[in-house]
Amino acid sequence: MDLITSCEEMQKRAREWRRLSQCVGFVPTMGALHDGHRSLIRLARNRADIVVVSVFVNPTQFGPSEDLAAYPRDLEGDMRLCRAEKTDVLFHPTVAEMFAPDASTWVLEDRLSRGLCGASRPTHFRGVCTVVARLLNLVLPDFAVFGEKDAQQLRIIRRMVRDLAFPVEIVAAPTIREFDGLAMSSRNRYLSPEERRQAACLRRALDEAEQIYLSGERRASVLKETIRQVIRTAPLARVDYVEIVEDQSLEPVEFCEGPVLVALAVFIGKARLIDNTRLPPVSPP
Amino acid sequence: MDLITSCEEMQKRAREWRRLSQCVGFVPTMGALHDGHRSLIRLARNRADIVVVSVFVNPTQFGPSEDLAAYPRDLEGDMRLCRAEKTDVLFHPTVAEMFAPDASTWVLEDRLSRGLCGASRPTHFRGVCTVVARLLNLVLPDFAVFGEKDAQQLRIIRRMVRDLAFPVEIVAAPTIREFDGLAMSSRNRYLSPEERRQAACLRRALDEAEQIYLSGERRASVLKETIRQVIRTAPLARVDYVEIVEDQSLEPVEFCEGPVLVALAVFIGKARLIDNTRLPPVSPP
Repeated sequence: MDLITSCEEMQKRAREWRRLSQCVGFVPTMGALHDGHRSLIRLARNRADIVVVSVFVNPTQFGPSEDLAAYPRDLEGDMRLCRAEKTDVLFHPTVAEMFAPDASTWVLEDRLSRGLCGASRPTHFRGVCTVVARLLNLVLPDFAVFGEKDAQQLRIIRRMVRDLAFPVEIVAAPTIREFDGLAMSSRNRYLSPEERRQAACLRRALDEAEQIYLSGERRASVLKETIRQVIRTAPLARVDYVEIVEDQSLEPVEFCEGPVLVALAVFIGKARLIDNTRLPPVSPP
Repeated sequence: MDLITSCEEMQKRAREWRRLSQCVGFVPTMGALHDGHRSLIRLARNRADIVVVSVFVNPTQFGPSEDLAAYPRDLEGDMRLCRAEKTDVLFHPTVAEMFAPDASTWVLEDRLSRGLCGASRPTHFRGVCTVVARLLNLVLPDFAVFGEKDAQQLRIIRRMVRDLAFPVEIVAAPTIREFDGLAMSSRNRYLSPEERRQAACLRRALDEAEQIYLSGERRASVLKETIRQVIRTAPLARVDYVEIVEDQSLEPVEFCEGPVLVALAVFIGKARLIDNTRLPPVSPP
């Protein structure tokens, strides 16, 4: 495995692969890799000749009061995991490599980014889109893998790629969970043992909502209240949002008919955790 | 020469050229091609295996009160000129091909875009950057040619390409002028014979400013007033702006020392015309 830290070198290698018609799979990450990332890398490994994993804690996607400084960094561990999964290149640029002091270009998705996490984190997706656009141009992959845990991010990246015609396929990878259903996330490292125990409420709440949906309940208000009730059973948890939205447009729905996305964000201790589930469309009677 | 109207087909061809290691030169235009465009195409022809010219009147770079509907369109003439210059592909997508009804992604350069034309046309460069980003991803060129007449646009595109790491070289082509110095522009077609005669004042004004600069004047205020005086000699002309800015940052200067850009926009009849000149740095005594 090669470690590349220079953007110029990364793009040079990428152009060579293009010339040689190699199929390149790309997994962009912020590092602190866990089994969720591992599954993304395996998915890429299964399809690509060359697998590139990037590790870059992107400052532009953190708000001023967020956890940029505290965000876990573990390059040694990340290299071990990538090597074990037969990654070809680990791309690990510095912030200075990625953003010139006078950088002044943003990629902005302004519809899907408004609600859900975008409402609580108003500059977050602008930072995500900008860095992903730059990474796609540096790595020139045939496909890039994004996790379904970040459901809104996945849809925004797909929209950006469609609108700007990036020549890349976006592949979605299913959420990987701990034994008790907690979605894997680098931010789970922030949790104390008791917080970690209570964090299982996110998935329990989504499961409960899914159960009553499957038994016939269609009112979004009732499903959302069910979720809030389950979260309230965890005294250390505080809801940021609970939303039910149309699966592609991310517009809030009152009744769950087409495929919908149930998404939530919950603060537990220092961590802000997100999770989601997709409810299948109602089949006609 | 092939005429391509589908974005999918354009990108498919572009990917084939990549595989064959062909050098692709790209000239993006809004059509109504003239000898200025011709010089850009020749420049591309001299360096590339494949030359692609796009003709697309981009609605997103026109303000609500601007000349989108009136903008000259002449596909027959454009095809003749492109054929004469040995263009390989004329890419002429419809608006619906370029922008999905729910398109929601913008590329925004927010520093160089503020002054000059950006001050009079607040959404113009957002439209330019977005469409150029999409065109670069559809044509996948090795280099793209932009005219120096649109000096601010050239610098913004260079900035966008640098910030987002598009794997393309931006090549600048010198301004081509009519016999009396008027910079060639599709918008010159709007001018009546008398307006056309008076339009020569733009270049005369820039020449005059350059002369007094070369004879030692360094005060931007004096150079700008000289320009306004020359423009005033044309009764049909009305200044939109006259600015002197640092050549790369486009920040206004008080004294002309490093390389500076003298830029102006002038309304004459229905046309808004722009022109500029770059003053060389002062050599130390």
